[in-house]
Amino acid sequence: MMIAGPDCAAVLGLLVLVAGCASGPRGDTSDTVSRIEWGLVLHGGAGTISPDDLSPDLERQYREAMEQALRAGHAILRDGGSGLDAVVAAIVVLEDSPHFNAGRGAVFTADGTVSHDASIMDGATGRAGAVAGVGTVKNPIRLARAVMDASPHVMLSGPGAEQFAAEQGLEVVDPKYFFTERRWQQLERARALDAGQESADPGAARSIHGKFGTVGVIALDRQGRIAAGTSTGGMTNKKWGRIGDSPIIGAGTFASERCGVSATGWGEYFIRNVVAYDICARSAYLGIPVAEAARRVILDHLEAQEPETGGVVALDRDGHVIMVFNTTGMYRGYIGADGRIETAIYR
Amino acid sequence: MMIAGPDCAAVLGLLVLVAGCASGPRGDTSDTVSRIEWGLVLHGGAGTISPDDLSPDLERQYREAMEQALRAGHAILRDGGSGLDAVVAAIVVLEDSPHFNAGRGAVFTADGTVSHDASIMDGATGRAGAVAGVGTVKNPIRLARAVMDASPHVMLSGPGAEQFAAEQGLEVVDPKYFFTERRWQQLERARALDAGQESADPGAARSIHGKFGTVGVIALDRQGRIAAGTSTGGMTNKKWGRIGDSPIIGAGTFASERCGVSATGWGEYFIRNVVAYDICARSAYLGIPVAEAARRVILDHLEAQEPETGGVVALDRDGHVIMVFNTTGMYRGYIGADGRIETAIYR
Repeated sequence: MMIAGPDCAAVLGLLVLVAGCASGPRGDTSDTVSRIEWGLVLHGGAGTISPDDLSPDLERQYREAMEQALRAGHAILRDGGSGLDAVVAAIVVLEDSPHFNAGRGAVFTADGTVSHDASIMDGATGRAGAVAGVGTVKNPIRLARAVMDASPHVMLSGPGAEQFAAEQGLEVVDPKYFFTERRWQQLERARALDAGQESADPGAARSIHGKFGTVGVIALDRQGRIAAGTSTGGMTNKKWGRIGDSPIIGAGTFASERCGVSATGWGEYFIRNVVAYDICARSAYLGIPVAEAARRVILDHLEAQEPETGGVVALDRDGHVIMVFNTTGMYRGYIGADGRIETAIYR
Repeated sequence: MMIAGPDCAAVLGLLVLVAGCASGPRGDTSDTVSRIEWGLVLHGGAGTISPDDLSPDLERQYREAMEQALRAGHAILRDGGSGLDAVVAAIVVLEDSPHFNAGRGAVFTADGTVSHDASIMDGATGRAGAVAGVGTVKNPIRLARAVMDASPHVMLSGPGAEQFAAEQGLEVVDPKYFFTERRWQQLERARALDAGQESADPGAARSIHGKFGTVGVIALDRQGRIAAGTSTGGMTNKKWGRIGDSPIIGAGTFASERCGVSATGWGEYFIRNVVAYDICARSAYLGIPVAEAARRVILDHLEAQEPETGGVVALDRDGHVIMVFNTTGMYRGYIGADGRIETAIYR
């Protein structure tokens, strides 16, 4: 049954563009987007975060860890190093901190184990590496990088990925290294919630301190190359070998020559909506700034499906710093060529 | 450092559209795209396939299995059933056949085991389910469907996913069920190739019979809903818990209200390029037909990175049947409302 297909829908496409340009005050992002010549932007997780959750001392520790991560990446870029190396260096600092749900501070699964996911992508070449479900590698982002550099694959998982880590000589640690009292208490609380022993307060269940959290870094290097990386311990009390968006290229992480994105939040929504790639695709195909694309995806598209789904950090090739979230907070910060650092937590 | 961001690049967007419309003979797909009122399109893997590889008897068996799968899905749609149910019914037929690299006919990993990946997505609701690295579930597509319907997650993996399958009462089989002599010989051949004992003929290494293969189905039901599903045994001789594109929403499978895609081929390229989603995104954002978007992604974008990367089948909401591949062959077929079946293998 062969019949005529549609013609090239130029008129429709033009209408879409015009509609996009006329979409209201968000169309002009000039007053909300910072710009750097080169540098890094990071997140340490998005969720229900209020000043009541953080003592002044704990808030200071979060900010210091983010600053240390940004400085580690900046030092590499300043010396002409690659965005990829800067992303790894910054994420390693966050993985080594007990505060973020990644590396050392990972939340516990339902089995009382840790299960790390991570991914990295090189926007200049389109290469990528990812790991899911590893529990013995000190820095999962280094393993994702090794998958990209030293294997023919993009994504490895479970015991096989740990075997690859051993073959690559990556640092392996005793599972005790990942034990933090705070995360254990969160697991016990989540178990109680799931068992109905505590009232199911959606805010509590969704709190970054109880459930979500991920770290991510985007770098724009002096050669104009964008790299993106994401690392997480996943979801407290997760079962059945659940894989979230963080190790999925297109969902939690994406980078191209013109756009890099790392996401954090309720992973299932980020997978179904292919969030990281969708932001770059909307920018490229609709001809809108990455910042505007990020707002449409996070504030309109995701928010319409479920409130407080999460957020992203992103950079475009012109150095626009993008930090967009629909939660009450997102640990976030950036550093420019001049070494000046900005960090923030609440909306 | 706050500076002005870029304005909405309507002019650039328009130029992109005009360039797209003027991209040559491929811009008009009217003579190559069939159309159905409702029905299904499937693939059984793309790769280096030549008539020399298939005896007339084997070719007949492949075609019969594809026809049986299409009829199974058609029966459900004819009676007013959902596209989701039709996708599962059709993929189960292909999984139960020893001929396709999915379910029973899965290739062997480097360990001599099987490791199935599968995913499914409901375009009408945006829900999705996926599994990676399961080796005991008779029909992995049923498990992906159960993840979507009966878990709060999108993606489960490994032993945890098998535990979930048991909890859901899905049929579990002895690993012997997945043993086929032909696949075992392919593993031994791949091991010899990797060990350098046979000359590394890229064609041979890339042959669907030796390395790749996946099955996928898109359905458009009488209510106008699109569903997409993909199932695979992955790559012969794969190591380290490698996950390919088939279980990754956005890479191997995607469905929306207007577009459904299932991919097959060299999975790493399909992950990096977020192929299934990119086809739907280009159509939606550039305002071009899904068929044209599929051609640009498979024939131009992927082919420029690596020849013979694979292919896709797709449907849009108007029932255009899309089967595009850059390999010498792709097992493929479709069925329309009238029950007429078309199948093909070679280019």
